[in-house]
Amino acid sequence: MDDIITLDYGSGGRKTSSLIEELILPAFGNSALDALGDGALLPGGLAFSTDSFVVTPLEFPGGDIGKLAVCGTVNDLAMCGAEPKYLSLALIIEEGLPTGTLRRVIASASAAAREAGVQIVTGDTKVVERGRGDGLYINTAGVGIVKYPGLSPKAMRPGDAVILSGAAGDHGAAVMLARGDLMQGEIKSDCAPLGELVRALLDSGAAVRVLRDPTRGGVATTLCEFAGDSGLGMELDGGAIPVRRETAAACALLGLDPLYAANEGKLLAVDSPETEQAALAALRAQPLGRDAAVIGRVTEGGRVILRTPNGGSRVLRKLSGAQLPRIC
Amino acid sequence: MDDIITLDYGSGGRKTSSLIEELILPAFGNSALDALGDGALLPGGLAFSTDSFVVTPLEFPGGDIGKLAVCGTVNDLAMCGAEPKYLSLALIIEEGLPTGTLRRVIASASAAAREAGVQIVTGDTKVVERGRGDGLYINTAGVGIVKYPGLSPKAMRPGDAVILSGAAGDHGAAVMLARGDLMQGEIKSDCAPLGELVRALLDSGAAVRVLRDPTRGGVATTLCEFAGDSGLGMELDGGAIPVRRETAAACALLGLDPLYAANEGKLLAVDSPETEQAALAALRAQPLGRDAAVIGRVTEGGRVILRTPNGGSRVLRKLSGAQLPRIC
Repeated sequence: MDDIITLDYGSGGRKTSSLIEELILPAFGNSALDALGDGALLPGGLAFSTDSFVVTPLEFPGGDIGKLAVCGTVNDLAMCGAEPKYLSLALIIEEGLPTGTLRRVIASASAAAREAGVQIVTGDTKVVERGRGDGLYINTAGVGIVKYPGLSPKAMRPGDAVILSGAAGDHGAAVMLARGDLMQGEIKSDCAPLGELVRALLDSGAAVRVLRDPTRGGVATTLCEFAGDSGLGMELDGGAIPVRRETAAACALLGLDPLYAANEGKLLAVDSPETEQAALAALRAQPLGRDAAVIGRVTEGGRVILRTPNGGSRVLRKLSGAQLPRIC
Repeated sequence: MDDIITLDYGSGGRKTSSLIEELILPAFGNSALDALGDGALLPGGLAFSTDSFVVTPLEFPGGDIGKLAVCGTVNDLAMCGAEPKYLSLALIIEEGLPTGTLRRVIASASAAAREAGVQIVTGDTKVVERGRGDGLYINTAGVGIVKYPGLSPKAMRPGDAVILSGAAGDHGAAVMLARGDLMQGEIKSDCAPLGELVRALLDSGAAVRVLRDPTRGGVATTLCEFAGDSGLGMELDGGAIPVRRETAAACALLGLDPLYAANEGKLLAVDSPETEQAALAALRAQPLGRDAAVIGRVTEGGRVILRTPNGGSRVLRKLSGAQLPRIC
């Protein structure tokens, strides 16, 4: 690790992994933490997860930090195969935040909790001096009840289908655009609670191996995590990956790759080829899964390879820097 | 509420209460949250709690933000009558934090978790730009198993003993002194995990009505919360409240009142008069409870009254401003 912490360590990519592997795991290592899922699986069939949200700006098309903080932790629990039940919500407010902003964010978190069917049962409020924060940071932690145990990258098999539940990169693009005046409003964050979508998918009887929501680092980084954890690879069909036209244009303008841009209302599922059509049908029957598509296959090799529509190919790696700082 | 959020809203006193009552409870209200205990009691015998830590400086005599973050949530769970089991740990790092500082803080959190007998099972890392944080903020959330249900201020009865487990104000005084060069090192924070002390107290068979750790806002604010929640009052014997000589001197110098200074390794217990001697004996048999004392009695009136050793008296109210900002 470097001598000082740079923004890259918060990117969700390679530097974040090095911090976790060199500093966190040796200090706290235990079987629940070492699994490094979106949440921890505890004895007694509980799932437990946490996330801090430092997005800037606090409000953006399609959501705000309050909605994001609820959906983020709800989704992490859902990706563990758990039914999200209870959330904590802790505020770190910068002195000078308009009370009206706080009120809107809290109302938005409340609406998201209602939509997701979770209760916010405990919380905390801290205020830091002007210049020691950025308006508002929120941490949520969540407890859920595991309904579908055994989801893990280690359950993946060559030939499995890689499914993305909808268009890639909307959240990252929307937040980046909201920082300027550029094209603002044309792209909305996809921020949404995924509990219902996961339930529909898993209740369909599809043989799902693993689920994860591709937030920081995007679709590409999440698939690289799957590859790293399973020892297997993936071959992706670039032409099959849904990306909205506006998002693709905005990413081109901003110099971003939609495959590395954050999503906050999408899931990646790896599914047995025998049940992939059932899985797709179950996802597409839900409003949040209408555009679900098989975007690739699991392979023997340890690498994630993207076949581009023009016949080329490139190896995808984890996000290597802070391409999209402060997007969640 | 005011139009903008000031530091007072994070003091743990009256403004913090107004923010919770006017903004948080109307948005999220449910029976678990409305109880406003140190943590939420969930169906199935679980306790769930969260706290963010924004202390400055990050390291101080007797502890650091890592130890504090573990002990704070462990103690909140213990005060619910729960055995603390699992913690989450989420870092918001300011760009530029020396990796060595992070390493020490993590090692300290790890040692505290071992001492407290809890596992850190899930986490998160975010990095914010220079000038958008203050080195490091940590959030912990925790899950525990309720062993002693029914603790509540509503269980208090007139005549009950008010017990403090040791000297008041050490954490607040130590942190405030650590900001200057004044008397530094003479006062150590009392930061410690209280699970064992609570277990010893409750296993003694003492008829404990309610427990709370007097952190932000100190002993006085916590007792005012008990009074507000129970509709009862308290009469405190100022001469019986243990305060270290060094802490009293430092508080006098800094213009603070030790009864309003934060503690991070003390508990307040209200106990039936029939078992108060058993409760005291159980506390005093533990290293963290050696100086436990009965500091007052529950009364009919709704006010908390301090009788001073010189025969005077004053009414204690919740901390009304940010007497001690950023102390936890």
